[in-house]
Amino acid sequence: MALKKKPVNGMKDILPDEMALRTYVIGLIRGTYAGFGFSSIETPVVEHIENLLSKQGGENETLIFKVLKRGKKLDLTKPTTEDAVTDSGLRYDLTLPLSRYYSNHASELPSPFKALQIGNVFRADRPQRGRYRQFTQCDIDVLGDPSYLAEIDLILATTTVLSKLDFHNFTIRINDRRLLKEMALKAGFAEEELGEVFIIIDKLDKIGWDGVRAELEEKYDKVRVDAYLALFEEIGSGEVTENARQMMEEVGSPLLAIIDTVNQTKTADFSMKYDPTLVRGMSYYTGPIFEISMDEYGGSVGGGGRYDEMIGKFTGQQTPAVGFSIGFERIIMLLMERGFQVPGTSGKTAFLVEKKMDADELAPIFQKAMKLRAGGICVDISVMKKNKKFQKQQLTDQGYTDIQEFFNR
Amino acid sequence: MALKKKPVNGMKDILPDEMALRTYVIGLIRGTYAGFGFSSIETPVVEHIENLLSKQGGENETLIFKVLKRGKKLDLTKPTTEDAVTDSGLRYDLTLPLSRYYSNHASELPSPFKALQIGNVFRADRPQRGRYRQFTQCDIDVLGDPSYLAEIDLILATTTVLSKLDFHNFTIRINDRRLLKEMALKAGFAEEELGEVFIIIDKLDKIGWDGVRAELEEKYDKVRVDAYLALFEEIGSGEVTENARQMMEEVGSPLLAIIDTVNQTKTADFSMKYDPTLVRGMSYYTGPIFEISMDEYGGSVGGGGRYDEMIGKFTGQQTPAVGFSIGFERIIMLLMERGFQVPGTSGKTAFLVEKKMDADELAPIFQKAMKLRAGGICVDISVMKKNKKFQKQQLTDQGYTDIQEFFNR
Repeated sequence: MALKKKPVNGMKDILPDEMALRTYVIGLIRGTYAGFGFSSIETPVVEHIENLLSKQGGENETLIFKVLKRGKKLDLTKPTTEDAVTDSGLRYDLTLPLSRYYSNHASELPSPFKALQIGNVFRADRPQRGRYRQFTQCDIDVLGDPSYLAEIDLILATTTVLSKLDFHNFTIRINDRRLLKEMALKAGFAEEELGEVFIIIDKLDKIGWDGVRAELEEKYDKVRVDAYLALFEEIGSGEVTENARQMMEEVGSPLLAIIDTVNQTKTADFSMKYDPTLVRGMSYYTGPIFEISMDEYGGSVGGGGRYDEMIGKFTGQQTPAVGFSIGFERIIMLLMERGFQVPGTSGKTAFLVEKKMDADELAPIFQKAMKLRAGGICVDISVMKKNKKFQKQQLTDQGYTDIQEFFNR
Repeated sequence: MALKKKPVNGMKDILPDEMALRTYVIGLIRGTYAGFGFSSIETPVVEHIENLLSKQGGENETLIFKVLKRGKKLDLTKPTTEDAVTDSGLRYDLTLPLSRYYSNHASELPSPFKALQIGNVFRADRPQRGRYRQFTQCDIDVLGDPSYLAEIDLILATTTVLSKLDFHNFTIRINDRRLLKEMALKAGFAEEELGEVFIIIDKLDKIGWDGVRAELEEKYDKVRVDAYLALFEEIGSGEVTENARQMMEEVGSPLLAIIDTVNQTKTADFSMKYDPTLVRGMSYYTGPIFEISMDEYGGSVGGGGRYDEMIGKFTGQQTPAVGFSIGFERIIMLLMERGFQVPGTSGKTAFLVEKKMDADELAPIFQKAMKLRAGGICVDISVMKKNKKFQKQQLTDQGYTDIQEFFNR
């Protein structure tokens, strides 16, 4: 029987060192958000295929692992289709299951409801270095709060987590979907052109202003493109200019209050930066959007925004919502690259026991171990090997600083 | 668009109270086993279909959720079969993925390797009260240790976990597959009859000795059945009799040393009981087997045993192994029924803020919150509602003991 040793394509086994780090980070995240009033919840990794394909997921809907129907419901003896043979699939994010969860349980939950989810999601992306087909996401959402207190608290909580993990000097870029829209409309673009315009603006980091201009001019008349790009100059970025302030007032955006309050309150080491070119991909955002940039890491290590219209698609009743997704896998990768040491237990002791002891000889050894363990010390007990030197080296490599030997009487 | 609000059939959403309990129990399990030298690891929930169907899983192999192949690999336009359209599935236990993991990574792991896995498994069982199609398993295994130190440590660690969760006065029933086999062979049964004989013995709890006798006599001659049942009388159960001791020596079973050492060492409140009728279902066990019985709960809340031959099926190289599986979902259910209180944070404070404050008014409120949070106190900030009385009641129900109000200047 030839069993396969490797994990399925694009997924990975997690070795003890990385797992210790992940467990530590997850504990720190849970503890920190709990301090901000967030409750942990969980949804199944398997989700209705209708929900997964309901156009909330954009690109990700093409990457779903579909689960085969079972028993009589499945008929493969005739030509058929994917839709006919599947009724569920693996979730590709945590936002869609959260919307379903909230619509199912709203009456049992406080309002506003502050939810923390840490769980695996699945995307059949082309496997590449550091990107896997199963990976952990960490989402924080405030449901049912129309006020921008939610945005402020999400930013303060998330930056507190990063600070506790020894990340400093990062930037939170912030924008508002309403500002993004207003600027494009002011330049003369039509409502139905906005999606495409924003896709081009979103490429700014990669192609620069010249590239953006070129791509816009391929599709739109020069007058509107000129007007549009001039507006970005006028509005500026970084500090909120008088022009920007005016437009924020016009569209009713609370960006200024969010930036000011965070700046006056933050305990972590980061800066807030108004960025009128920030788009973020997901089309469901309706208000403030934000993204964490870290110099150490080229891209974003987290982001989110307000999406006041998504949950209503389940409930039929509009529910304001704002969420943040932390790039859990990226943060783990950065911490590993940096050699981050998980704060350890108070001590690690190894007992090496000679072979073939009877119960009366073993009992006092195990008793000693149990006493140390009760005092918070890790004690590993194993049989002495022939190559004791190698065995001790292995134990030392695992962090055992105290190695005790026990011999037969 | 009609999205589905309920989870997929047989799976469940986890609400905040249960989630807080689960998170607490998982933390306690990880911390306790770490103190015994166990490392946490993780494998993907998706596994190769060939591995899942390799006859390690018994019954469970009929309950697999299969994952559809993707892209060009999938052809549904012609009549086809399940095997042709699937290449992976959701794992139904943690033992099979552990064997694959160990065979893939043995050279990077210490020997013996003590592994802790907590993860979701999937079985398309008929849904019923308290049994779900996605549920969490908690497995602890010692790989590469032929000595019974492994059994002792597994029992001590697991009972320490249960004791910390305030479970007392439970029983660990222990037997050895070699004793079970020896007794049946002594009574005259043939090697190839043993599987069926054990299935009948395994029903003892449900049908009693009379039932066992009747079922055995249906299939086998009375002489052998008489001899077999007389042997159980002779051997006795509970205390290890002289007859039992002799047979343990004959087959080289370390049960006595395990029982004695555990009895002299244990810090939790439980008793060890030799039970010559203990079978445990899985056919892969080769040595000592054990099961935790709790009066509060009819059945078993965990069990395990030695399975020295399974990992060799992946590696081609025999690797001694012994494992324990804790009935995580049952333990959570028992704790919830009992109203177990998760040891809380040091305090929960709610700030109610009047609507429409500007940044200068909000900043000192958020600053105050951040100071309290840094001191380990949970602070929830939300906007004051019209029905403040109801809002305060909701917060009190969530455990907020201190509610402070902040008004506009």
